[in-house]
Amino acid sequence: VKTRTIALLGCGTVGRGLVELIERNRSLIAERSGVDLRISKILVRDLAKERGGVDRSLLTVCPEEAVANGADVVVEVIGGLDPARRLVEDALDAGKHVVTANKALLADCGPELFRRAAERRVRIGFEASVGGGIPVVRALSSGLAGNRIERICGILNGTCNYILTRMAEEGLSFESALSEAQAKGFAEADPALDIDGTDAGHKLQILAGLAFGRSLGRGSVRVEGIRALDREDFEAAAYLGFVIRHLAVGRDLGGALDLRVHPALLPKDHPLAHIRHENNAILLKGDAVGEMVFHGRGAGGAPTASAVLSDIIDLARHGTGPALRIPDSEPAEPADPESERYFRFPVIDAPGVIGLIATALGNHRISISHASATLVSGKADQGSVRILAHACRASVARKAVDEIARLPVLTGRPVALSIESND
Amino acid sequence: VKTRTIALLGCGTVGRGLVELIERNRSLIAERSGVDLRISKILVRDLAKERGGVDRSLLTVCPEEAVANGADVVVEVIGGLDPARRLVEDALDAGKHVVTANKALLADCGPELFRRAAERRVRIGFEASVGGGIPVVRALSSGLAGNRIERICGILNGTCNYILTRMAEEGLSFESALSEAQAKGFAEADPALDIDGTDAGHKLQILAGLAFGRSLGRGSVRVEGIRALDREDFEAAAYLGFVIRHLAVGRDLGGALDLRVHPALLPKDHPLAHIRHENNAILLKGDAVGEMVFHGRGAGGAPTASAVLSDIIDLARHGTGPALRIPDSEPAEPADPESERYFRFPVIDAPGVIGLIATALGNHRISISHASATLVSGKADQGSVRILAHACRASVARKAVDEIARLPVLTGRPVALSIESND
Repeated sequence: VKTRTIALLGCGTVGRGLVELIERNRSLIAERSGVDLRISKILVRDLAKERGGVDRSLLTVCPEEAVANGADVVVEVIGGLDPARRLVEDALDAGKHVVTANKALLADCGPELFRRAAERRVRIGFEASVGGGIPVVRALSSGLAGNRIERICGILNGTCNYILTRMAEEGLSFESALSEAQAKGFAEADPALDIDGTDAGHKLQILAGLAFGRSLGRGSVRVEGIRALDREDFEAAAYLGFVIRHLAVGRDLGGALDLRVHPALLPKDHPLAHIRHENNAILLKGDAVGEMVFHGRGAGGAPTASAVLSDIIDLARHGTGPALRIPDSEPAEPADPESERYFRFPVIDAPGVIGLIATALGNHRISISHASATLVSGKADQGSVRILAHACRASVARKAVDEIARLPVLTGRPVALSIESND
Repeated sequence: VKTRTIALLGCGTVGRGLVELIERNRSLIAERSGVDLRISKILVRDLAKERGGVDRSLLTVCPEEAVANGADVVVEVIGGLDPARRLVEDALDAGKHVVTANKALLADCGPELFRRAAERRVRIGFEASVGGGIPVVRALSSGLAGNRIERICGILNGTCNYILTRMAEEGLSFESALSEAQAKGFAEADPALDIDGTDAGHKLQILAGLAFGRSLGRGSVRVEGIRALDREDFEAAAYLGFVIRHLAVGRDLGGALDLRVHPALLPKDHPLAHIRHENNAILLKGDAVGEMVFHGRGAGGAPTASAVLSDIIDLARHGTGPALRIPDSEPAEPADPESERYFRFPVIDAPGVIGLIATALGNHRISISHASATLVSGKADQGSVRILAHACRASVARKAVDEIARLPVLTGRPVALSIESND
């Protein structure tokens, strides 16, 4: 049994979860993996704050003290860019392996950090950055290492999925569903990162980099959140045989990469249609392995601590092998994906409204497969026209929506969702 | 880029799948993992047989020639015990790493082989032995390495799941569903290994050994197949809100291990109830990570080749780290698990039949929650009594069934299925 010491940066939900997990399973880990794990120091901002179950003598507010002290691995669970970026850089420069759950950091400056780690001959473990406890980074980098990955389709943000489940199943408004998610502790400190799709975008950037072997800079993922969705959309989706999920989609189209995060309609028998509440799921399609789905708890202290711990154990076992890194090659050109689409146009009740919209779509060669309208006379702000359209390119749909949005009969911003078939 | 040579033992579906996969993704693998893979020799039984896509100059019928020749890794995809066992032992003795898809071999003599490999300082990769292309061996040994695993629940045999799906959804008889599975190429050469549960038993033995860290000898898994199931069982299950699946269940009950393979009733909202046709799925519950489900194609040439290849690549990357092995400790005592149960008793139409059965169950303190009977007068061989019972121990259920089976009103062997709730 070899001892490995850990400097822990941050002591929030994940940090405390890790301390507790190492304590509880110490002998099991030693027996199974031959490693005895010791936490040497814990960097916090506030020494006085109550932290149940954590040995106060380990706490420090001084980064240098946390990282020095002979730590073998530095675990960063602070989140965000500042001061996490600087602390991780300093740890790498000091020749320490780093394990991080920080998707924003990796999405923002992954290539620089991996380069720095390679120069110092140390490694960065990041299983915890995507999918909580689901070992999807390992699946892509090791379990499916012989496959050409053709497609990723994931539910990567538990808060969004919780809100969508509650809106669909209980008819809750967006606001009440969000409050529930916050009360249950799923939402990030700033819920905008969740509900505007930024968090899922960061995670897709990490997965797609691994899967497709391309560098993915800022802006390579087109991101849309779930704020615009309305009760009517859930009713229309259910009526038409779909569910609404916030998806992260990555497809390798040969030259171009199709990378996007947005709410979408899924047929009820799609493998991700059953994923409810705060759960995460990732569908991977490899050329040899076919379609594979992983699902489980995508967030929370204990599942994320499980992923962090798996990286710490792997570093202790294989610390000298080649490093896993997100590639740093030429960025891919963006794709203009084709799919069937759903549109909702909020409109006033006026003669000719449906014709106006249908004609505008037709002008863009968007062909309608199903249309329904609810126009409430006397209540100008409550009507809507819902359209299901045959496959068209994303750029065409955007242009048509922008044009229709300017029509004087519109009372609000149109909603456009792609339909993700399981092809 | 370092070159690694592979001696391939066997050139059936999986072997040919591997040859093709390595050929197709050679440059991608080299780029991603820094390994150039070369197949040096392929051991076959019949040199004359047609093998599309395979370089005939690599074929040999001589095991010594296949393994010598400077191979770094020996891949065994022959299956069965003889001659696979001897060939694997010889390869280990010659100081070669071994990658195998052979669950029968590992279930039967895993501990001896792992001991032999450790003595020679080589490794055995066995991702392909369970779950086809699903990287569940890695999930247990690496991704969830910090978790105490509490429960495994898997659909591990694609042939059984295919047959059960077709019987439930199309009302097919067992025989026609089996013929379909064979025509589609899912079934093992000897279908008895699939439908009697032996294959799933071997796989559970491997997973449970990894998950619970205990040695599991022959006979440690209680195994039942699906031959006894009848159309009536599917009708009763559907009526009561269940589906029937052939499950492999492993639970760590502290001292005892509950290890069993059998058909069972699952509530329609159980995470494995949606797994249809030849797919496999594995639910793992860890103390930190909670419940996680992996599903995908559990068999077939390409998915299994994907798993074999992942082990070859890992050996090239980490060939010097500590070996993964199924532990070789004290065997655990068997458990006597408690669960709700479903019974079907085939009976003649005679007065008092239902009372006889209900009384016999009552004598064993098995309490009925739902009962239904179809008794066809004049057709003595077509009646049955179906019972849903509150939780009772397996040993009690067996005793009651054995007793009732001896009643003169019985026309055939009773069927008893446990109900697996998702607790």
